[in-house]
Amino acid sequence: MSNRPFVIDFLHAGGIHLSQYDHHIVRKLSSLRGQFLDQEIYEAMLRAQDPILYEVYEVKGAEVAGELIHGITIIHPGKVGTEYFMTKGHYHLLLDTAEVYYCLQGQGSMVMETPEGDWAVEPLRPQSTLYVPPRWAHRTVNTSPSEDLVIFFVYPGNAGHDYGTIEKQGYRKLVVERDGKPEIIDNLRWLPPEKR
Amino acid sequence: MSNRPFVIDFLHAGGIHLSQYDHHIVRKLSSLRGQFLDQEIYEAMLRAQDPILYEVYEVKGAEVAGELIHGITIIHPGKVGTEYFMTKGHYHLLLDTAEVYYCLQGQGSMVMETPEGDWAVEPLRPQSTLYVPPRWAHRTVNTSPSEDLVIFFVYPGNAGHDYGTIEKQGYRKLVVERDGKPEIIDNLRWLPPEKR
Repeated sequence: MSNRPFVIDFLHAGGIHLSQYDHHIVRKLSSLRGQFLDQEIYEAMLRAQDPILYEVYEVKGAEVAGELIHGITIIHPGKVGTEYFMTKGHYHLLLDTAEVYYCLQGQGSMVMETPEGDWAVEPLRPQSTLYVPPRWAHRTVNTSPSEDLVIFFVYPGNAGHDYGTIEKQGYRKLVVERDGKPEIIDNLRWLPPEKR
Repeated sequence: MSNRPFVIDFLHAGGIHLSQYDHHIVRKLSSLRGQFLDQEIYEAMLRAQDPILYEVYEVKGAEVAGELIHGITIIHPGKVGTEYFMTKGHYHLLLDTAEVYYCLQGQGSMVMETPEGDWAVEPLRPQSTLYVPPRWAHRTVNTSPSEDLVIFFVYPGNAGHDYGTIEKQGYRKLVVERDGKPEIIDNLRWLPPEKR
């Protein structure tokens, strides 16, 4: 990334693309092993194919305090059983760092929780922001049956990512489809703070 | 501002409004004394009226490292002589902090410079981001003859604002209308680093 000011265009041709970026991260179904509720359906799906669940286009300079990393995340529509496609989700490695989202397209939810087990699920809808305060782990869920969810993100350059904690303990809440609508349910495999 | 996650909607009814915010800053012509090129026209305009040049709606928690302040700036269309309406502009008080913009509506320019006198002017147009690296002062200019310029911003909670430096030394470059189009010109009253 340049250390001079620069402009990036969001191109809307067959989905949203950035005119430039530093990293393109592609996460397939196989990279979310152990995260979905129905492990049998997950394994059966994976034997048939390994679809892309989401992609991140990141604009990134030095990973230091004062810098801002920004970009877009695109979560494709789909489900594993009744559970919607979602990101792995993470805590920031530097826990006391926030993140701001602006939703560009689609419909979804942000599933969040603190190390103490407090939780929140907030909607993602076009032309709205979502503020994730410091200390809240966050996972993005696409609840549309057919449309990509596209969100613009900004977070501090020194935030870093802690994926391991969530991989181990899971999220307290999951978002599944019930009667054609998103519903928040308890994750029975979630490890509460006292059992970690 | 809450320390739990929250959503803000960008309402598009007669201009863009936020469904919630912590501060509403209103800057009138009178607050930009000494910043416009043509001081005579400025004073004559001010004797007739004191119009609102721009407004900021800010969502703001603790002003500490790791937090992110976000919101929108609305610069109204207009000119002082040939010079377009603009923001005061500032350095961040903590100089080594960046800012990220996403343009929601309108047409404009961001006028930027470093303490060493390096300068840049980048366009603001809908569906594009502008990255302002650490150390760059920034001023927003609305170059549309009739439309509000509306930009979404995110910057570090501990950045702070230094308006005084720019008030004293001015910006190296100005944006004026020539033959109905924006043109970048030198500011003859700018104080270069060696004269400060």
